[in-house]
Amino acid sequence: MLDVADVLAARQRVSEVARHTPLDYSHTFSARTGAEVYLKLENLQRTGSFKIRGAANRLAQLTDEEREAGVVTASAGNHAQGVALAASRLGIDSKIVMPEHAPISKVNATRDYGAEVILHGPDYDAAQAKAHELEEREGRTYIHAFDDEAVMAGQGTIGLEIVEDCPEVDTVVVPIGGGGLISGIATAVKAHRPEARVIGVQAEGASSVAESLQKGERVTRDQVDTIADGIAVRTVGEQTFEVIQRRVDEVVTVSDSQIATALVELLERSKTLVEGAGAVALAALLEDTFDYEEGEVIVPALCGGNIDLNVLTTVIMRGLVEDGRYLKIRTVLKDRPGALRELIDVIADAKANIYGIQHDRTSRDLAMNDAEVELDLETRGHEHVAKLIEALEAHGYEVDILA
Amino acid sequence: MLDVADVLAARQRVSEVARHTPLDYSHTFSARTGAEVYLKLENLQRTGSFKIRGAANRLAQLTDEEREAGVVTASAGNHAQGVALAASRLGIDSKIVMPEHAPISKVNATRDYGAEVILHGPDYDAAQAKAHELEEREGRTYIHAFDDEAVMAGQGTIGLEIVEDCPEVDTVVVPIGGGGLISGIATAVKAHRPEARVIGVQAEGASSVAESLQKGERVTRDQVDTIADGIAVRTVGEQTFEVIQRRVDEVVTVSDSQIATALVELLERSKTLVEGAGAVALAALLEDTFDYEEGEVIVPALCGGNIDLNVLTTVIMRGLVEDGRYLKIRTVLKDRPGALRELIDVIADAKANIYGIQHDRTSRDLAMNDAEVELDLETRGHEHVAKLIEALEAHGYEVDILA
Repeated sequence: MLDVADVLAARQRVSEVARHTPLDYSHTFSARTGAEVYLKLENLQRTGSFKIRGAANRLAQLTDEEREAGVVTASAGNHAQGVALAASRLGIDSKIVMPEHAPISKVNATRDYGAEVILHGPDYDAAQAKAHELEEREGRTYIHAFDDEAVMAGQGTIGLEIVEDCPEVDTVVVPIGGGGLISGIATAVKAHRPEARVIGVQAEGASSVAESLQKGERVTRDQVDTIADGIAVRTVGEQTFEVIQRRVDEVVTVSDSQIATALVELLERSKTLVEGAGAVALAALLEDTFDYEEGEVIVPALCGGNIDLNVLTTVIMRGLVEDGRYLKIRTVLKDRPGALRELIDVIADAKANIYGIQHDRTSRDLAMNDAEVELDLETRGHEHVAKLIEALEAHGYEVDILA
Repeated sequence: MLDVADVLAARQRVSEVARHTPLDYSHTFSARTGAEVYLKLENLQRTGSFKIRGAANRLAQLTDEEREAGVVTASAGNHAQGVALAASRLGIDSKIVMPEHAPISKVNATRDYGAEVILHGPDYDAAQAKAHELEEREGRTYIHAFDDEAVMAGQGTIGLEIVEDCPEVDTVVVPIGGGGLISGIATAVKAHRPEARVIGVQAEGASSVAESLQKGERVTRDQVDTIADGIAVRTVGEQTFEVIQRRVDEVVTVSDSQIATALVELLERSKTLVEGAGAVALAALLEDTFDYEEGEVIVPALCGGNIDLNVLTTVIMRGLVEDGRYLKIRTVLKDRPGALRELIDVIADAKANIYGIQHDRTSRDLAMNDAEVELDLETRGHEHVAKLIEALEAHGYEVDILA
C-alpha cells in the first residue's frame, strides 16, 4: 500500500514540473461557516489541475528503455494535459487518445503541451481501448490516471504542502473520482498530522466510492451523470480503494445544483475559476454535509479550473437559478395595444429587473388573439421570486416557470 | 498637486481596511508577449476593487464633526462598495445613492457592507443630484469617486506595492476612467522609480482623457459606450487631469472586443475573474497598443473583479466569437425528411461541434415548405470558421452569420 515515504520521494520530481500552489485564507467562507477556511488553489496549478503532479512523478521513474519507447494514455480532460506537459518537460514522446467529441479547447491545450493527440471513438471506453492497442503495438508505457502508486504519490505532494503551509489544519476536504488525489493526500496528511480528518466528496451522480464503502467492496456504476466531469468515474481504483478504506474518515456526496452554487460563489466572491470537480469540496462544506466545530481549520482542495467556457456559462445560469437570482417565465397576454406594457408594469412594481423578452404571436397552441411572452428576469432570491409570481397571478397572468 | 508624501501618508490608513494584493508572475502572458509580465491582482482586493483604498484614506481624515454627520456619495458600482465598507470599518454612517436599475448584486453588496442604499432616478446623473441634495440637507460629506487628493493618494498605495514587490519594474499599465487610480499610481511610481513608464488605457467608447490630452484641455464626451462600465466616465477630473498631463507617459485605447478577449483569456488561462475595466490593461499589452522590448518587466493593473454574472456570460460568448471559437449561423433547408441530417453531416465532416439547434418551420418570411435552422457551433478559430462556411456553401446552403 502507498506509504508516506513514496510521497516524500515524489516531492523533488514533482517540483521540477509542477508548482507549489497558494493556500488562501477565505474571509468570505470563514464568515459564512464560522470555521477558519483556507482554500488550496490547485486550479492555479500548471495545466490547470493537480494531474500534472502524478504524471510528473510517474514519468520521472521510467527506465531509459521506457522513456525511449514513449508513453500513451486515454483521457478527455486533465490527465491528458498533465501527461502531455510532464512528458515534454522530461523529453518523452507522448500519445494521448481522446474521444472524437472532446471539447476543442482541451484537445488544443493537450497538443500545445506537446503531445500527439489521437481522436478516436465516441466515448472514453473506446479511446481507452485504442490507447491500450498503442501500448501493445508500439511498446509504449500506459499511464493510468489514478490506480498507480507513483501517480497517487505525486498527487500526495498536495497534502505535504497543506500541512506545511497550515500546520494547525483540522480537516482536509478532497474530491474523489478514481481516488488518486485523496489517496495521496490522506497518506501525507495522516502521516504528518494524524489527528486531522480527511473527508472525501463525490458527486451524487458518480458516487461509486460512497456505495463501495457501504458494500465493503468496489462497486461499478452503470453510468455516471454529473456536471463535475473531472470526477465522473464509474469505478474507484483497486489500490486507491484500499487506501481510502484505511485512511479516509468519511465520504459525503453533493448534488449538481450544490456544485453549481459553490462554483458561482467562488467566481463571484473569490474571483477564482474552478471546474465542477474543483467546487465539490467547498460545496460539501457550505452544505453542511459533515460536522465541524466553530473555529475549526478546514482546507477544501479546489482541484482544478479547466472548465469549458460554454459549460461555464450554463453553470453560471444554473447557479443563479438555484439562488433565486435568475428566473425565466412564460405567460400569455391578450394581443392588443398596451398588453405588454401592463405586464412590464407589474414586474417593475415587484422590483425585478428584465434582462430579456421574447414576444411571439405565431405559436400554434395559442388562440388567434393571444400572444406568448418569455421573460428573463433578475430577482433577489427565492422569497422575491415567490412574491413576484404571486403578484403576476393576482393580476390574472398564468405563469410557467421555465428556469 | 498630489505629492508622493500624500501617498506615503495614506499607507497606514489604507492598510487598516484594505489588503496588500498579490503581484503574480504570469507564465502564459510572458510567453505570449516576450515581456516579463506580472499581474497586479487588485480584483482580489476587499470589495472586489481598488476603490476601497481611496475611500479608506479619505474617510480616515474626516474631522470628528464630519464623522458624526456621516458621508454620502453616488455610484452604481465599485466606489459604492468601497465607501460602504470603509465607512463601517471606521464607524461612520454612510448613505449611497444608486440609480434605480443598478444591478441587484451590487445593491446587495453595498448594503451588506453596511451602507444605507437609496435607489433614485434613471441614471447616474440623477443619483448624483440626489446625493448632493443629501449632502446639503443632512450636512454629510460628499465623497468624490476620483477628483479628490485623498482619494487619489489612497489609490496610489497600489503603486507603492508594485515598486516594492517588483523593484525592477519597467512599465506599469493602468486603466483610466476618472483618473484617480492612475494619478495615485503614477505619483508613487515616478517618485520611487523615475525611469519606469506609466501607460494609461481607456476604452475606445470612453476615451475622454485621450481626447483631452490631444486638445490640451478637458473634454466632456456626450456619451460613453463600453463593456468596461467601471471606466465609463464622461469627463476626467480636474485634479487628476493635471497629474496625468505631468506624470503619465502615454495613453492608449482598446476596443470592447479586445477587452472581451483579454477578460476571457484571464479566466481561461489564469483562472482569475476581472470585470471589463480590470481587463483593459492586459488588453492594451496583448494588442501591442504600445511599444516594449523583449524581456521588459511589465505590470498590468487588474483593477477590479466586480462583473455581474449575467454580463459575464455575454462577455464570454463575445470573447469566444472574437476568437473564432463560437459561431452562430442561420440557414434554410427544404422541409423534408433527412434535410436536417444532411446539414448536420456537412458540419460534422468539417469537424465543428454542435452546441445547439433551433429548428423553426413557422417563420413568416419563408416559403411554405422551407424550414429555418439556427445553429450554435464550437469552432477552432477564424480559419476553421472560413472553411466551415465554404463547405456549407459548396453544398448549396446560404449561410447568415449571426455571431
